[in-house]
Amino acid sequence: MNYILKDENAVFYECGFSCDNEIFLKFSDESYFITDARYTLEAKENIKNAQVIETSNLEKRAGEIIRKKRAKKIVYNPKEWTVESFEKISQKSSAFFYKRYNFSQKKRIIKTKEEILLLKEAVKRAAEAFDEFALYLQKAKGKSEKTLHFEAVSFLSKKGELDLSFSPIVAIGENAAKPHAIPAKKTLKKGDLILVDAGVKYQRYCSDRTRTAFFDGHINFQKEQRFKDSKIQKIYDIVLKAQEEAIKRVRPGVKVCDIDKAAREVITDAGYGKYFVHSTGHGVGLDIHELPVISFKDKKTVLEENMVFTIEPGIYIEKEFGIRIEDMVVVTKDGCEVL
Amino acid sequence: MNYILKDENAVFYECGFSCDNEIFLKFSDESYFITDARYTLEAKENIKNAQVIETSNLEKRAGEIIRKKRAKKIVYNPKEWTVESFEKISQKSSAFFYKRYNFSQKKRIIKTKEEILLLKEAVKRAAEAFDEFALYLQKAKGKSEKTLHFEAVSFLSKKGELDLSFSPIVAIGENAAKPHAIPAKKTLKKGDLILVDAGVKYQRYCSDRTRTAFFDGHINFQKEQRFKDSKIQKIYDIVLKAQEEAIKRVRPGVKVCDIDKAAREVITDAGYGKYFVHSTGHGVGLDIHELPVISFKDKKTVLEENMVFTIEPGIYIEKEFGIRIEDMVVVTKDGCEVL
Repeated sequence: MNYILKDENAVFYECGFSCDNEIFLKFSDESYFITDARYTLEAKENIKNAQVIETSNLEKRAGEIIRKKRAKKIVYNPKEWTVESFEKISQKSSAFFYKRYNFSQKKRIIKTKEEILLLKEAVKRAAEAFDEFALYLQKAKGKSEKTLHFEAVSFLSKKGELDLSFSPIVAIGENAAKPHAIPAKKTLKKGDLILVDAGVKYQRYCSDRTRTAFFDGHINFQKEQRFKDSKIQKIYDIVLKAQEEAIKRVRPGVKVCDIDKAAREVITDAGYGKYFVHSTGHGVGLDIHELPVISFKDKKTVLEENMVFTIEPGIYIEKEFGIRIEDMVVVTKDGCEVL
Repeated sequence: MNYILKDENAVFYECGFSCDNEIFLKFSDESYFITDARYTLEAKENIKNAQVIETSNLEKRAGEIIRKKRAKKIVYNPKEWTVESFEKISQKSSAFFYKRYNFSQKKRIIKTKEEILLLKEAVKRAAEAFDEFALYLQKAKGKSEKTLHFEAVSFLSKKGELDLSFSPIVAIGENAAKPHAIPAKKTLKKGDLILVDAGVKYQRYCSDRTRTAFFDGHINFQKEQRFKDSKIQKIYDIVLKAQEEAIKRVRPGVKVCDIDKAAREVITDAGYGKYFVHSTGHGVGLDIHELPVISFKDKKTVLEENMVFTIEPGIYIEKEFGIRIEDMVVVTKDGCEVL
């Protein structure tokens, strides 16, 4: 199959290099990495299995190569292309452009041993940063969410040495009830609940982790938490149980919807089903959101060894608080390992 | 003219609000702001001149509204849309979708008094951060570019309180010769040249500023600089003169290509024309890169009062060093003001 890629991670997966301006073309007999003068030197040093083409007009050049190769059919992912870029390429060639959604991500759903090692290292480094951030928080009474967010970035990135998987979420109290909370001026005080959802990249591979913890001057990001408020404690224990049940169900041959079900049943049986407003998890790799999606909507996808994804049930009580607990797992021969 | 927008800043300009998942539709008689459940409350509080529509499928809903309004022609910018989103909308409606590149940016090319005040504030805050960063640098001998980059982010954002216009460039010595340098492990030592290109946003309006400075333990980001190396000094003075000449030429009625020419001639006459590898400047506003583009390629665009753009000539000697000096100007009745 001939195909064309624009997404940085999709391109990196093909040839071990990418930059912020490139088009990758794959034909049965050869591949092309098209970029501009800023990146050609580095591209040539790092890419072994593709010809590096330097040009100031990437789309035009890609169209010309497709025409020259007399390719009849080119697969592309419509999510990766702007109308502008796609038209420039397709107008230049007579090939038929065949839509296939997320075909690069589908390829990447089973991780190699090497990829799993990198993912483990990314998880480990984020976990260490959570612990360092906890130490910082003990002196952070009165600090705003915005400041805490900045400090989380600082600890996670080791002051810029590591890239982050995404901009971390640091939410206090009722702000934790918003699944995509934006940092606000709310300040940290004793008795608060704090939710931290964050991850780092190690050699481009992402980690993703959420902890919800009680702050009474001291704080830690262990899964075992003691809250003063009995309603919070009750709901925390439900979410933790939901996560444990989902993790227990993970093994090759099980459908992703059944993993979601294992978590969702615990929460629904406890009477909080309508407060669990997202799916149970998502694949993680070069992208922070990959396949599989651990959702009741997907009745088909079956787990296989070396898939890597999150298990992250949550309960969100609007205007009160939110709880989410998230870890990454890798599917093993007969179960799973929590990373 | 009916039109459809996806870009956050383009939407913000229309209705004073935007989020990270929205479509804006403008008809002669009414406007629609289409978003998902996470943002409807905030949208309703902030938008006065558009109906807020909540949906989980934005494209489908936009297509339905276009059909219901019986719109015959809808203008769109092909740079704003993925093939996927655009097809979902256009398939749902029988309107003719009419391409018009950057029509929102064209609208925004002349700034209002209020916008100019916000841009001035953004420039002022970045300038203050440059000075604070200079103080930090005096104790930063031996620090890596990556660390310096992180500290620049810290000073510019005031530890997360302000958004940045873009990820700043902090480049030492020969790394400053790469117009888009990526932070590296290179460390700062006495006698180094350091180039800093950075800006912050104030109420969403961007600033953009570059200084190249000499580090001998002390450092400042004034335009007047004394380098030990006479070649560096010579080239620095050429770039500074080029900037001054370009600024002098700015007034209503002058073509943008003539502003570029004023800078380029100084550099070319000094024998470094081929080392000035980019255009002389770009508009700044809600986007960090807006119109006009101050380039010799644009023979048509004529300056008007209240346009705001950068003047940023540079000379880059590969493997040695790079110099760039950048300020923002606003066109006044009979000249310009440096912000």
